[in-house]
Amino acid sequence: MRVRNRKGAPEYMAAHPEIVVTEPEVYKGKWHERFGNHQPIHIEVGSGKGRFITEMAKQHPEINYISIEIQLSVLSHVLDKVLAEEIPNIQLLQVDGSSLTNYFSDNEIDLIYLNFSDPWPKKRHEKRRLTSSDFLEVFQTISKNQGEIYFKTDNQGLFEYSLASFSQFGMTINQVWLDLHTSDFEGNIMTEYEEKFSTKGQRIYRVEAQFSAK
Amino acid sequence: MRVRNRKGAPEYMAAHPEIVVTEPEVYKGKWHERFGNHQPIHIEVGSGKGRFITEMAKQHPEINYISIEIQLSVLSHVLDKVLAEEIPNIQLLQVDGSSLTNYFSDNEIDLIYLNFSDPWPKKRHEKRRLTSSDFLEVFQTISKNQGEIYFKTDNQGLFEYSLASFSQFGMTINQVWLDLHTSDFEGNIMTEYEEKFSTKGQRIYRVEAQFSAK
Repeated sequence: MRVRNRKGAPEYMAAHPEIVVTEPEVYKGKWHERFGNHQPIHIEVGSGKGRFITEMAKQHPEINYISIEIQLSVLSHVLDKVLAEEIPNIQLLQVDGSSLTNYFSDNEIDLIYLNFSDPWPKKRHEKRRLTSSDFLEVFQTISKNQGEIYFKTDNQGLFEYSLASFSQFGMTINQVWLDLHTSDFEGNIMTEYEEKFSTKGQRIYRVEAQFSAK
Repeated sequence: MRVRNRKGAPEYMAAHPEIVVTEPEVYKGKWHERFGNHQPIHIEVGSGKGRFITEMAKQHPEINYISIEIQLSVLSHVLDKVLAEEIPNIQLLQVDGSSLTNYFSDNEIDLIYLNFSDPWPKKRHEKRRLTSSDFLEVFQTISKNQGEIYFKTDNQGLFEYSLASFSQFGMTINQVWLDLHTSDFEGNIMTEYEEKFSTKGQRIYRVEAQFSAK
């Protein structure tokens, strides 16, 4: 997601260290201490403005959520929502998806969401796609044994690529939706992007894929 | 495919025992003798009227093809094409997909095509779908080690089901097409059914899935 810089965003974020994690490496293997409980931890890599993960957090107080987004200005919009609704079970992390093993120990994460990730359509940019093997390696490391990725996108090419990539990485495709919004899937929470593009008649694809045993 | 009975079809088929295999169990493990060479063997399970497999046979004289279709009247239309074009590298087999281990020995088949298989949309008919686990078990048995299935369909529900079914069976999804006719896939041969439905704007889905090592 490309956005304009938000004026004052760094100071705004720094003023909320109870929500925006400033030294994430400190919590590697200790996220339960940070949350103050032993609930499962679900992360979204590339949260955008955060409607999805904040809504999930509100609906599932029994889960801890971590919103991961590399762009500070974008992440600041997630903070807006967390503050406005006083959501207790969510933390914000401004780091790159490829670096997650620095901040999470093996088996620490219960579920990973990828929503409308950048498709990087050019073949030479394949390694930047969040569903490419190097990222999957990272995701598997930090996931519990046989953990899962829930992925949705409107991008046909990225979805075609991702199904094959998951499978070739040894993951099992548990379920596929080729037109999520006309399916009987219940409880879908639309991201900002999803609402915008699905109203234009764009199909939304979804898959639940599971890592093999470690 | 549901069709009316074709008058005289049994006699017509019986008159061409050089093409229509009347005692297929005799050739189990010996199909190369029947073809008179050691070319790879590709089969299509549910050939319909046979445009796909007869065109493939014409384009690939270096491959042997076996058209498998349970309905005699339907299969008789494949025979029409084989006779009209004098195609030497194809044989016709009127048997059920679930019985193939009676007619092929382990590892005898190099590639399996499934085209526009009956979707059997009701959950209670799941076991009748050609991409369900019992059929995959049969297909793996008769396939060479790490053999492949090439599957295409216009049926969204069947395609969603099949991707998960292949994966859960331990197969690897090598490549996926979510809109075959607008893709850069080259050399697609349309079945009779495919041509009819794609001109109505229906998407065609395709996948290449590979069995794991035996």
